[in-house]
Amino acid sequence: MGKRLAEIAQWVQGTLRGDPERCIRGVAGIEDAGEEDITFLAAPRYLSQLATSRAAAVIVPPGVSVDRDAIEVSNPYLAFARLLELFYPPEPLRPQISERAYVAPSARLGQGIVCYPFVYIDEGAEIGDGVVLYPGVFIGRGVKIGPRTVLYPNVSVYPGVRIGADVIIHSGAVIGADGFGFTRDEQGEHYRIPQVGTVQIEDRVEIGANVCIDRATLKSTIIRRGTKIDNLVHIAHNVEVGAHSLLLAQVGIAGSVRVGEGVTLAGQVGVLDHVTIGDQAVIIAQSGVAKDVPPRAVLTGSPAIDHRHWRRVQSCIPRLPDLVARLRHLEQRIAALEKGEERP
Amino acid sequence: MGKRLAEIAQWVQGTLRGDPERCIRGVAGIEDAGEEDITFLAAPRYLSQLATSRAAAVIVPPGVSVDRDAIEVSNPYLAFARLLELFYPPEPLRPQISERAYVAPSARLGQGIVCYPFVYIDEGAEIGDGVVLYPGVFIGRGVKIGPRTVLYPNVSVYPGVRIGADVIIHSGAVIGADGFGFTRDEQGEHYRIPQVGTVQIEDRVEIGANVCIDRATLKSTIIRRGTKIDNLVHIAHNVEVGAHSLLLAQVGIAGSVRVGEGVTLAGQVGVLDHVTIGDQAVIIAQSGVAKDVPPRAVLTGSPAIDHRHWRRVQSCIPRLPDLVARLRHLEQRIAALEKGEERP
Amino acid sequence: MGKRLAEIAQWVQGTLRGDPERCIRGVAGIEDAGEEDITFLAAPRYLSQLATSRAAAVIVPPGVSVDRDAIEVSNPYLAFARLLELFYPPEPLRPQISERAYVAPSARLGQGIVCYPFVYIDEGAEIGDGVVLYPGVFIGRGVKIGPRTVLYPNVSVYPGVRIGADVIIHSGAVIGADGFGFTRDEQGEHYRIPQVGTVQIEDRVEIGANVCIDRATLKSTIIRRGTKIDNLVHIAHNVEVGAHSLLLAQVGIAGSVRVGEGVTLAGQVGVLDHVTIGDQAVIIAQSGVAKDVPPRAVLTGSPAIDHRHWRRVQSCIPRLPDLVARLRHLEQRIAALEKGEERP
Repeated sequence: MGKRLAEIAQWVQGTLRGDPERCIRGVAGIEDAGEEDITFLAAPRYLSQLATSRAAAVIVPPGVSVDRDAIEVSNPYLAFARLLELFYPPEPLRPQISERAYVAPSARLGQGIVCYPFVYIDEGAEIGDGVVLYPGVFIGRGVKIGPRTVLYPNVSVYPGVRIGADVIIHSGAVIGADGFGFTRDEQGEHYRIPQVGTVQIEDRVEIGANVCIDRATLKSTIIRRGTKIDNLVHIAHNVEVGAHSLLLAQVGIAGSVRVGEGVTLAGQVGVLDHVTIGDQAVIIAQSGVAKDVPPRAVLTGSPAIDHRHWRRVQSCIPRLPDLVARLRHLEQRIAALEKGEERP
Repeated sequence: MGKRLAEIAQWVQGTLRGDPERCIRGVAGIEDAGEEDITFLAAPRYLSQLATSRAAAVIVPPGVSVDRDAIEVSNPYLAFARLLELFYPPEPLRPQISERAYVAPSARLGQGIVCYPFVYIDEGAEIGDGVVLYPGVFIGRGVKIGPRTVLYPNVSVYPGVRIGADVIIHSGAVIGADGFGFTRDEQGEHYRIPQVGTVQIEDRVEIGANVCIDRATLKSTIIRRGTKIDNLVHIAHNVEVGAHSLLLAQVGIAGSVRVGEGVTLAGQVGVLDHVTIGDQAVIIAQSGVAKDVPPRAVLTGSPAIDHRHWRRVQSCIPRLPDLVARLRHLEQRIAALEKGEERP
Repeated sequence: MGKRLAEIAQWVQGTLRGDPERCIRGVAGIEDAGEEDITFLAAPRYLSQLATSRAAAVIVPPGVSVDRDAIEVSNPYLAFARLLELFYPPEPLRPQISERAYVAPSARLGQGIVCYPFVYIDEGAEIGDGVVLYPGVFIGRGVKIGPRTVLYPNVSVYPGVRIGADVIIHSGAVIGADGFGFTRDEQGEHYRIPQVGTVQIEDRVEIGANVCIDRATLKSTIIRRGTKIDNLVHIAHNVEVGAHSLLLAQVGIAGSVRVGEGVTLAGQVGVLDHVTIGDQAVIIAQSGVAKDVPPRAVLTGSPAIDHRHWRRVQSCIPRLPDLVARLRHLEQRIAALEKGEERP
């Protein structure tokens, strides 16, 4: 089931330069593309790789000439994403509520839901139209899930959590477990502070495998619209993550942190409790954020500092043994000079 | 269903200063409290926030005067926790063993158990009175679980693990998977060392979502009474964590480590194998512990050093480029002085 | 059911020095061994501990004389592993497909499979002979699993993933969730790049609890033969991990990384995207790898540098405040000298 190049150009809203009738059967990287595949050039610097590619056609950024059929688009990466949608459409799922799922009598289910075996839906839950619940999903009492949201196998959603539309939650994620809040009792032992708040996940959020997002103590832990969260991320109670942010794998965010809009937290970053991170800030991998971050800042290190300054600092660190030796040498030379000066 | 202030004062064992008949309908933070809510003042420094709060009443520490009805207690945080229990009692669960659960014939179940659909209880398991097993929980062969313990959805408990009373284990936690132990075989390939020990979780321990606690090679990995473990923590084989410790999110503890009583490991801390951490020690977030830690030490950094010294070191690090420049300048000045001395 | 020492010596292919008829009933560490146990001496330096051990017999490395019955082997650790297999054989499981599992009509199941209740096997899956699928396991459409592979409870395997023979996957692991790939759409919002590739796990790989291995964008994320992965590790899309490597707990590997053969990544190590790590390299715990690593390198730090150099650097870091003070002192002394020189 190939596609004509003209059809592809129209699908990606690009300008065709070449044979509209050429038949394309797949999408592949520059090096792997076969003679019936289309590939893409993310940037002009990859042009040299194209010379040896067998690809029949190529998606290019504006103003780039190539040696074969091409489709020019303003954003080749976006066109690539859309081509993958065209050539690899997901298997359609047949709406049905498995008899092997458990649906509490008072749960309300929308139209066109796919509910696999071994799903558990508790009392008072509301599941929107077209939601997909894979095996082993647990939906607690009173949970609300918006239309077209997909929960992959073994996701646990604790009571009262609200999830928006078009959300994707990957396997093993846990939404709404108790926040980690303790005080001391009269005997000095840890005493649980009941976590009676909830979690609110807005529309178009994506949540990776085995992510943990804890419920708030009183109000809501909130993940705003369009934010994407990678695997094994921890988000503590009372945190608010702004819209369109990216949280990469294994990030840990402590309680009551505010993350702005369009923020990027790279892999394994940690953020201390009650910190505020400004819009569009970028925190480089493995950094530790211990105080507020202004908007658009780029920080690195643990504790994190301005990235450019960090680079200068970092270039000194491997030279420390040399610096110590030079310092010791200077001390000797000065001692000699001082002695010389005393002499006369 | 409001509560009279007199009733609340009695519940938290505090001293009422104000109208005993005032009706309170909820608990909220200082800023969010409405006109029928009670709030709390964790410390006198928050007094200024109280001025603009609409709260009807406030829990205060000893000797703090406020502009409205108040209940004086020795520990406002503890009183807050108890108020949450009073106003937000958990939904009572109806004891029953779901017909959709699987319970092996030789498993022994106590009284008043809640066993949801899709729970699996293997041969020889012993489940104490009042235990709650949510959907997707797996209880391996011969596991013992003490009274009133709660296992949230999709928790896996491997064979032979022993869990005490009043334990809480959140979704996705894995207790008793094989420790990571390998040697080399004659071909130089990794060869599994069978992990024939187990895990022992004592009373009142709490375990966060997606935590992993591995079984010992020969004896037991042990988590002692009252210790609280946050999400995504890794505890390797043969580790022993003492009583009343706090392990924050994403902590990783390698094999055969001994963690003392009342220890705090902050978020993302790593501890190398065979290390001993003394009682009451505190390890600051993201630190790496590579050698034994004395009791009551406070350490930071990777490798971790005394926290106060670390702060002084840390203040130097961003100045390194400046120090290098100053050193170079000194070298030039000394060279000039040395030249001057040679001249005469 | 004890074993004669002669039988044990034969089992571990060692040389018996002592009473072949002595009956041994268990295996234990040097300190814990009772009077009918055998223990082992990993290295001569533990000899002093043996003096107070009650063990009836001991496994020793070549050329070590001890005060009791002994079996000499070239690798005591390997012999210990094999003794554990002898004395603690795993409970045999009865092959059967539970009626409470769901097996799609077009799935193909081999001989001798153990399929517990609440397992879900989707259309077109192929499950090899002797595979064990514990409760809550999800097998997606078209997944292939080789013979004798074991999937512990609540493992999720997404559609199309291929898993080899003799693989072990612990509870909560997620194999084949979507890689974390986004571009920007015309409105500047994050736009999903469909992840149409898969994951390939080769023979004899072991995967720890709650590990996440993402599917590739186009081809395969690959874990090669014999590699062992500890708990809570994240492996992003398009990564390839070579054969016989060890990835310790909480390691995070970003997209398109190449890890060589026999590599060791210690706990909490992070690797940036597109990095190549050479064969036999060792990265010490908590390090961050930001550029290519040559074969056999040993690196530490974030960013990681040569381990031996790192140790020298590390010895300087706690002395930084002292170095700053010495530098300031030198500046004063030089200023004094310069003043003195001007004087005459």
